[in-house]
Amino acid sequence: MNTRLSSQTHQVIIGIEQPFVIIGERINPTRRKRLLETMAAGDLSVALEDARAQIAAGAQVLDVNAGVPGANEPKLLADLTRAIMAVMDVPLCFDSANPAAIDAALAVYPGKALINSTTGEERMLEQVLPLAAKYSAAVIGVLTDESGIPPTPDARLAVARKIVKRAADHGIPAENVIVDCLALPVGADWKSGRVTLDTMRLVQRELGVNLSLGASNVSFGLPDRKTINTTYLALGVACWLTAAITDPTVSEIRMTLLACDLLMGRDEYAARWIKAYRALQKAAAASTNP
Amino acid sequence: MNTRLSSQTHQVIIGIEQPFVIIGERINPTRRKRLLETMAAGDLSVALEDARAQIAAGAQVLDVNAGVPGANEPKLLADLTRAIMAVMDVPLCFDSANPAAIDAALAVYPGKALINSTTGEERMLEQVLPLAAKYSAAVIGVLTDESGIPPTPDARLAVARKIVKRAADHGIPAENVIVDCLALPVGADWKSGRVTLDTMRLVQRELGVNLSLGASNVSFGLPDRKTINTTYLALGVACWLTAAITDPTVSEIRMTLLACDLLMGRDEYAARWIKAYRALQKAAAASTNP
Repeated sequence: MNTRLSSQTHQVIIGIEQPFVIIGERINPTRRKRLLETMAAGDLSVALEDARAQIAAGAQVLDVNAGVPGANEPKLLADLTRAIMAVMDVPLCFDSANPAAIDAALAVYPGKALINSTTGEERMLEQVLPLAAKYSAAVIGVLTDESGIPPTPDARLAVARKIVKRAADHGIPAENVIVDCLALPVGADWKSGRVTLDTMRLVQRELGVNLSLGASNVSFGLPDRKTINTTYLALGVACWLTAAITDPTVSEIRMTLLACDLLMGRDEYAARWIKAYRALQKAAAASTNP
Repeated sequence: MNTRLSSQTHQVIIGIEQPFVIIGERINPTRRKRLLETMAAGDLSVALEDARAQIAAGAQVLDVNAGVPGANEPKLLADLTRAIMAVMDVPLCFDSANPAAIDAALAVYPGKALINSTTGEERMLEQVLPLAAKYSAAVIGVLTDESGIPPTPDARLAVARKIVKRAADHGIPAENVIVDCLALPVGADWKSGRVTLDTMRLVQRELGVNLSLGASNVSFGLPDRKTINTTYLALGVACWLTAAITDPTVSEIRMTLLACDLLMGRDEYAARWIKAYRALQKAAAASTNP
């Protein structure tokens, strides 16, 4: 099953026989002070620089979050969308808990976007799915519901089924639903990594939908987070993870995901691997001999 | 299915719900000049130092190869076995293309060893399986046969079935057969990584046996081999790889495999992860402040 996203003229395909899709996570002011300050002042230059850097590092889609406290989020998200689209041709993923903000951004967006996200909660489904239907957007479905985070793969599969079914009721085909099986910190619950991986295999087998993950959370509170995060991405790819919201400007993440493509038979003649390695070498040489 | 190996008093269990087992690859003179020279002169001190370093770095089993050109391999492998057993209590994996050498080593070995390896070739099966039966050893079965390397997962599964069947004919239970699905350089054939991973899933599902891999070969001829090798190990773990012949003294390999255990729910309270991280930090501090 292939999920197609698009910007003005550029299409990105997410699917298990396609190269892994990195959704760049950096345009998110909740975790980044300088981005927050500039966006709060209506200055989008840092956000645009983040967009450029992530695309250069291999992001095929950009997550865009305009959650600046006190700001008019719908206006800010729409402004950011226009600003990025004015200079870049890359699909966007609108990341907000505010349906009005997602609506405003989709209204000015020129292609097929991704919505981040709904859960299995009734309230969320009824707010988010009509937007996906209205704009023919794809949507990320996170496997939680009114009762919280289901503890077993089977219980999470039931939430995935519900989201896909409710999407269908709104006329949204399954290929426009990307399921997030929910990576939780293994430092808090050492069995949670396995539950998520088993859920991914199960959801892919039973529903055939594409899978995405916010994978940085899994290492929270533990040392050497980078190794945990890159290893989790590789384990995920073998369990049919097809996209992740992550930071491609971290070279270890980017190279691990390219190695996954290479080792999963998705990098013809290792061409992308060799190209990325050379680009890294060149960048390293440039930074030591300015 | 659990494969049990032992030395004098120590048992190692290989299985999908067990921590991943690293079979240390360093005691192999074919690739290491100083080890070759010392072993050729009958000096086993470098080999013993390699044994110690690998155990300290997390090897649970040691691969032992005495392939020194011109040497009496059966005598050398038996001497090496005695020398290691005199000071260490860790299961060994006898790595030789010479059945007489494996026989000589097994004859002096105090526990249940692993034989590396047979293939699906008649000649090999008839030489190696009787040794595994005679000494109640486990054996690695590499998925090649008279016609070479089967190109598809199904054809490799057929070789795995044959090896398991022929082992049974010799009274060797399936839990004493560890299948190596054969990692080939993706630089030479960009589809080969995927064939091996798909074979691993298939062999585990159909036969339930444990899987091992010599994983360093996959990156041959490509840049940034370390990232390719560690990523392949993680992809393999998600496809039920339970052991690998690799070098735990490379900290990236060791930490990736520990991260796999952590993320597969095999590291209670992340205790081994945190312990290994602290040990690495301590070693780094010691090397900068001697």
